Amino acid sequence: MRIEKKTSRDESLVIKLENEEHVYRLSDYDRIFGIGFGKASARMALGLEAVLEDRLFGGIIAVKEGHTEKLNRLSIMEAGHPMPDERSIRAAEAMLGLGISLGQGLTDRDLVIVLVSGGGSAILCSPAPGLALEDKSVVTRQLLASGAAIHEVNCVRKHLSGIKGGRLAAALAPATLLALVLSDVVGDDLDAIASGPTVPDPSSFDDAVGIIRRYGLEEALPKAAMQHLLKGQAGLVPDSPKPGDAAFIKTKTLVVGSNRLALLAAEAKAKQLGYNSLLLTSRLEGEAREAAMFFLAMAKDIAVAGFPAKKPACLIAGGETTVTLKGSGKGGRNQEMALAFLAALGRNPKDGNGLTFLSAGTDGNDGPTDAAGAAVSLELYKLAIRQGLKPEAALENNDSYSFFEKAGGHIKTGPTNTNVCDIQLLLVT
Amino acid sequence: MRIEKKTSRDESLVIKLENEEHVYRLSDYDRIFGIGFGKASARMALGLEAVLEDRLFGGIIAVKEGHTEKLNRLSIMEAGHPMPDERSIRAAEAMLGLGISLGQGLTDRDLVIVLVSGGGSAILCSPAPGLALEDKSVVTRQLLASGAAIHEVNCVRKHLSGIKGGRLAAALAPATLLALVLSDVVGDDLDAIASGPTVPDPSSFDDAVGIIRRYGLEEALPKAAMQHLLKGQAGLVPDSPKPGDAAFIKTKTLVVGSNRLALLAAEAKAKQLGYNSLLLTSRLEGEAREAAMFFLAMAKDIAVAGFPAKKPACLIAGGETTVTLKGSGKGGRNQEMALAFLAALGRNPKDGNGLTFLSAGTDGNDGPTDAAGAAVSLELYKLAIRQGLKPEAALENNDSYSFFEKAGGHIKTGPTNTNVCDIQLLLVT
Repeated sequence: MRIEKKTSRDESLVIKLENEEHVYRLSDYDRIFGIGFGKASARMALGLEAVLEDRLFGGIIAVKEGHTEKLNRLSIMEAGHPMPDERSIRAAEAMLGLGISLGQGLTDRDLVIVLVSGGGSAILCSPAPGLALEDKSVVTRQLLASGAAIHEVNCVRKHLSGIKGGRLAAALAPATLLALVLSDVVGDDLDAIASGPTVPDPSSFDDAVGIIRRYGLEEALPKAAMQHLLKGQAGLVPDSPKPGDAAFIKTKTLVVGSNRLALLAAEAKAKQLGYNSLLLTSRLEGEAREAAMFFLAMAKDIAVAGFPAKKPACLIAGGETTVTLKGSGKGGRNQEMALAFLAALGRNPKDGNGLTFLSAGTDGNDGPTDAAGAAVSLELYKLAIRQGLKPEAALENNDSYSFFEKAGGHIKTGPTNTNVCDIQLLLVT
Repeated sequence: MRIEKKTSRDESLVIKLENEEHVYRLSDYDRIFGIGFGKASARMALGLEAVLEDRLFGGIIAVKEGHTEKLNRLSIMEAGHPMPDERSIRAAEAMLGLGISLGQGLTDRDLVIVLVSGGGSAILCSPAPGLALEDKSVVTRQLLASGAAIHEVNCVRKHLSGIKGGRLAAALAPATLLALVLSDVVGDDLDAIASGPTVPDPSSFDDAVGIIRRYGLEEALPKAAMQHLLKGQAGLVPDSPKPGDAAFIKTKTLVVGSNRLALLAAEAKAKQLGYNSLLLTSRLEGEAREAAMFFLAMAKDIAVAGFPAKKPACLIAGGETTVTLKGSGKGGRNQEMALAFLAALGRNPKDGNGLTFLSAGTDGNDGPTDAAGAAVSLELYKLAIRQGLKPEAALENNDSYSFFEKAGGHIKTGPTNTNVCDIQLLLVT
């Protein structure tokens, strides 16, 4: 992805994606606003300021506390994450009232560029009228505890919000909206990233009430929340904007960064380095240590049987796995996957020659550690054993960080201020 | 793989493998014996009898109790499995004394065809002199309980045996030996299948004693076992035959059936049916339900992003996963993997169109059930939900068999009398 300002007779903003290009002629707009929310949005705003320079009229960027950058034309607001707080409400109000807060309502000669990144759901919070901040958190907790799926939780949340589920787009009309999205969600569902404030919400109040009933929460739900949903079902509260609504005619939402795009870049690099590359998936989920077993199985077949790729091979995957904690050690899902791979290599060392496996988070932070992940090989296993380290025991104690601190193998990038999930690379030479 | 008898001027036995062909001119041999051991060996013997007819002089096939076939020229012995018993010792004695038991020692004009299949380790048992049957089982249990890896357990076992680790080949010299192996071991390690009675043992008494010491079992081990290992280390007992030993000059061991070969056949069929096929691995291990997550991640990307294969795609894998039991239901690793896939489909139904996933055991028995496995799709999920079935709850209770009995989706082949591990197929159309 590349964003540039084309300066010829007609100045344009050009968004170049994989197979498409979007062009905004700047002379069509009196003012260009930049707004944003999410953990990476201050960093994204830096880029926007650099491209648009003095054509950027102003705007507000809301980030997780501490995730700021020094911006010139855009204001920064900090807010709560992962739990929204009062600052999240103020940030949402500022976004919803963008034109007004800057002294004048938005017109159809305004362009609002919205920089969306992960974490935006908490950083912006706008409880529907009559609801308190706390009510929304309670509903989310109740649904999750009842076993509701994440898309069900999101459906209910969108119907208790004044900004999620496309409502931000509706509030900013009649301006033209260009949302640039950095996806931290496996699968890049636009209505899931930051709860989709600029995309149509296909679900209805009916659906939301149905979900509450399915999990038998009618009585348990905070009164104000249940009343709001029932009012919505009765048509007394406007539903979230639907696909085809006027709010979206002048709105475009583009994924400009994602795990998939990062993997495609890795694949191009692997090819350039002479590897036979195979991109497996950008949606890897499930238990981290078990995913390692699948990679190892393929690694051995590459080495011995020539499938799923010929040597020298580079398998590439990404996504977001999980760790079921059993021990009391320090680590993260990427380090745990790498450690599980290393431990399995040790159980069958004769199959381990020429294998290198890496798992790392693109944000530079794997779990509560200062490492992005780790890279492992049979050589590292042997070094670790010689030092008296016990990979199996470290894995059992979820102590991958401490293990790699001693053994080597850590990947440390520092915080990257971006986040497109995790990446796994497997080299077989 | 194909075995045939070529009848021209010179009758020959021809073994046709993927990339090689092995020819035995029958006129070179006065007698051709057939021996075999393992769960599938009676079935293999049927084939051998059909090919060699009256050129087959005689021999003994030892199988798991009940796994017999009606043979014409070869005798059948039944023995204990998975725990060896006294019949296992008698079977081993019969094999080791093959020439003698048939009235005359073997000569260099004899050909012995050995039909090896999984389970042979228990079905043949020959404790080293001074050891009781029970001693060997105790050692195995002690090593496994101490966390020894399977190749370490096998190393010790081979040094407590009179038939494993190439000793059968040594006993049958000077006859020519042709071992045809049906592999039920992930990775097809020849020295692991039935404990490698016809292949050189690279490990020594030194290694075996080292392993006992590594796990601190010198005192705990049955006395006779420890004494035997120490005598071996002191050179007082002959070690297992090593690579390059005379015993193997006239011995050939060929894998004629394996998971890999089954997968290659599946791949050829998938191509013929018009699928873009991708063979992932024949060595899949780890937790069954977690492997399902990896398949689902790839399935979604095939549907949406065109990798790791283009639609219509058929991904193929195999191996032997495990199930960590938490519940009290009935099932097996293949049905559990299929159920986990189905449950995950249900959590995100919008990504599930056009996906079909199958996992099944090639022996026709998944766990203690009469099903080989199951095949699942979004349609099956919807049918199950309509019937009031709860996939997540069934998975939690390891109750995959009961679930598929009600929902449909079972693959039932009956016992196939063969075993080359499990197969997974994923179709994306």
